[in-house]
Amino acid sequence: MAKRTYPLSKVYGLLEPGPVVLITTAHKGQTDIMTQSWHTMMEFDPPLVGCVISGINHSFDLLKASRECVINIPTLDIADKVVGCGNTSGRKIDKFKRFSLTPSPAALVQAPLIKECYASLECVVADTRMVNKYNFFVLEVVKAWIDPAMKNPNTLHHFGKGNFMIAGETIRLASRMK
Amino acid sequence: MAKRTYPLSKVYGLLEPGPVVLITTAHKGQTDIMTQSWHTMMEFDPPLVGCVISGINHSFDLLKASRECVINIPTLDIADKVVGCGNTSGRKIDKFKRFSLTPSPAALVQAPLIKECYASLECVVADTRMVNKYNFFVLEVVKAWIDPAMKNPNTLHHFGKGNFMIAGETIRLASRMK
Repeated sequence: MAKRTYPLSKVYGLLEPGPVVLITTAHKGQTDIMTQSWHTMMEFDPPLVGCVISGINHSFDLLKASRECVINIPTLDIADKVVGCGNTSGRKIDKFKRFSLTPSPAALVQAPLIKECYASLECVVADTRMVNKYNFFVLEVVKAWIDPAMKNPNTLHHFGKGNFMIAGETIRLASRMK
Repeated sequence: MAKRTYPLSKVYGLLEPGPVVLITTAHKGQTDIMTQSWHTMMEFDPPLVGCVISGINHSFDLLKASRECVINIPTLDIADKVVGCGNTSGRKIDKFKRFSLTPSPAALVQAPLIKECYASLECVVADTRMVNKYNFFVLEVVKAWIDPAMKNPNTLHHFGKGNFMIAGETIRLASRMK
């Protein structure tokens, strides 16, 4: 997918609905991809995102060492790759190769974007205060990319144990909420 | 809706997909309801939930003082009430009365369940370390309730500015993920 830059002030609308994401990391020639649903917006602009990355994951080591990552948002068409990345360890395999995902260079961080994802958020670690106790990282999104052709992305939303909800129809309600 | 208790070990499956929630609080005879999308699971069992409650909200004061709340999960049939609770302040109105929502007593906390929501999670504040800087509370779910008749809840997922995605179809993929 050909992505364009996307305003940082609009990033919250991508993560608020709760999509499964693929987090990429890179450090000293190693890269990893991690499937993840435990994230939340914490501030609008500059966007802050809190996310849990368990210490048992290879991505934890790469994120802690590099202090950078990319949050990529996949859709239904690569659901098998999303599950594959969740069921394997980057300590044993190169997930980009195994699942035929295409790394593409980010602008501001070492971790790669995933070309097959419709949106990618380049992040730097902003706060590690909750890492020791909860594996909880506060990330600042420093650059955002989106495929402008993707109008109603079929994002995946995990119920647990391989059960996913696929994003359904959208409605607009009279609201003064941001 | 008639709710039954629900195992704490299964709570993550309710919040992982990213639904809009209604958080209820109570303190010294005052109650409030807040519409919220900025939450994430942080631990499976006992379930920990991180959520941002802005200091400008009346709910922030009630949560800070009482250290208890209930996370209620609404569905499409009360979408107008969800938006209404998001567009008003509990400092000026009683949201239960204004939006004809029915408070029902919780088992372990003072904050009420919302009868019209299909699931309700009684919570106590577990960690306030990130409240000053980020308005971020770590909550422990101590009791969970669900309407057993609700099979495919039409949860709401906020894109921003009153645009919502309604939960779509569900799929099951071969996964070893929890």
